[in-house]
Amino acid sequence: MSERHPGTGAPRGVERRAVLKVPAGAGDDAVAMEEPLELRVQGEVLAVTMRTPGRDEWLALGFLLSEGLIRSAADVGALAHCGRPGDEGFGNALEVTPAPGYRFPFDRLESSRRGTIASACGVCGRQRVDDLMARVVKVPAGAPVPLPVVQRGPEVLRHTQAIFEQTGGTHAAALLDVGGEVLVAAEDVGRHNAVDKVVGGALQKGLLSRAAVLMVSGRASFEMVQKAAMARVGVLASVSAPTTLAVDLAERAGLALVAFVRGSSAAIYGTRDRLALHAGQPREGG
Amino acid sequence: MSERHPGTGAPRGVERRAVLKVPAGAGDDAVAMEEPLELRVQGEVLAVTMRTPGRDEWLALGFLLSEGLIRSAADVGALAHCGRPGDEGFGNALEVTPAPGYRFPFDRLESSRRGTIASACGVCGRQRVDDLMARVVKVPAGAPVPLPVVQRGPEVLRHTQAIFEQTGGTHAAALLDVGGEVLVAAEDVGRHNAVDKVVGGALQKGLLSRAAVLMVSGRASFEMVQKAAMARVGVLASVSAPTTLAVDLAERAGLALVAFVRGSSAAIYGTRDRLALHAGQPREGG
Repeated sequence: MSERHPGTGAPRGVERRAVLKVPAGAGDDAVAMEEPLELRVQGEVLAVTMRTPGRDEWLALGFLLSEGLIRSAADVGALAHCGRPGDEGFGNALEVTPAPGYRFPFDRLESSRRGTIASACGVCGRQRVDDLMARVVKVPAGAPVPLPVVQRGPEVLRHTQAIFEQTGGTHAAALLDVGGEVLVAAEDVGRHNAVDKVVGGALQKGLLSRAAVLMVSGRASFEMVQKAAMARVGVLASVSAPTTLAVDLAERAGLALVAFVRGSSAAIYGTRDRLALHAGQPREGG
Repeated sequence: MSERHPGTGAPRGVERRAVLKVPAGAGDDAVAMEEPLELRVQGEVLAVTMRTPGRDEWLALGFLLSEGLIRSAADVGALAHCGRPGDEGFGNALEVTPAPGYRFPFDRLESSRRGTIASACGVCGRQRVDDLMARVVKVPAGAPVPLPVVQRGPEVLRHTQAIFEQTGGTHAAALLDVGGEVLVAAEDVGRHNAVDKVVGGALQKGLLSRAAVLMVSGRASFEMVQKAAMARVGVLASVSAPTTLAVDLAERAGLALVAFVRGSSAAIYGTRDRLALHAGQPREGG
């Protein structure tokens, strides 16, 4: 699933660095790449993220959707790295051009990022949580996902992790359809970036409407639920733990949050009717 | 090491949420708290971070030091939550007042966050990496840390993780002195926050100059090295993997980055003479 370097065939996103291993000795080892990516609109920096190079266009599309700046791939006219291939450092800045006639609603971004400065002090913290909750999108109804599809997710994800296999240093994310087929998968040193990449990849390929499960390798925090909700994906699954705000937001957005997906066990938070539980599996009150 | 709720004696930072466990059944479970914290200066929002409540003052101090906005605890006049205890949502906004006569150098923050907008497109990506490298602080020389002190770090860290033990949902960080004694430890759903908390805690207690090792539960990325360098701590240790930029920055800042600290094995990147390797352990070229 990962891009390969045209020259060497090695997965992009890996470089070698000198290391002294104890007890093995001195040598060099494969390390996951981390470099800044500037997302620019008309020369202005919209965001900077520390990411693993590769699939930058997907990352940009997924980020724009997640922040509410676009509704579909058609809102973007062009995505292009600044400068020319071969320039030193080429590839670390990406210029985003809106489609003709479309304007990015930046006021939405500003209000979500900086909060309402004028809000009365003392209630501002609560205000912000309420705003986060109020802004969340309700995910439309869809066919329930069989729990075994979710439970196979970690194994499916593992097969897409070419960079992790070499470096141990990346997170992974994948979008699965209701039958468990992988629609898009991606790796990144940042878990938010890995999610933006798969959402943007599905958007570009026209597959996002088929996505039923967002499987992530890291913890299920608030931002993961927010990104799933903005992508209209009804099930967020993680091998790891959730947070309180992630659980509350999943409830609000109508998402099932399936945490601690390990072997035959799992912990289901949020909106449980997104899932089809098989006979023999416990039900609420049953 | 963690704060306890005055009423219940439970560690702060944990709440219960309804869950359906497979195969166990319905119930509720301890979940790590995640809530937004606004850091404010004269009513303006300086930053918002999703954090586990508790030790907010430490988090603020560590963040300010890490961003280069203060040099010592003496640069801060007051740190106080906005509003009154008992108000709904009290505790999610913290007002920072500089010491009399001190001004926060906000221009530094802006330039690091947004980059130089005027920089020629095409080289901007490289420019940003170079800027990151150029801005890094060289950590002053100190007594080498015996490698076994670092190797005991994960076990030491584990004993401080009261929230993780209940929830599986938090990262942890600790500052150790050259003999391995824990100076400060903290937990948070965000790994950057956990580091800011221990740095701020050590700053407040006047212990930061004794800190020789920053031990973290998560991966060793660029920002972790940057925070260690800004706190003048010579060894960053992680149970997990490094990134390329973290390795490069550690080299530049004169830090040892010890990754994959597991049992008797470890991988040492960056500036190796921060460490004292024992007889029988491999040396470069030896």
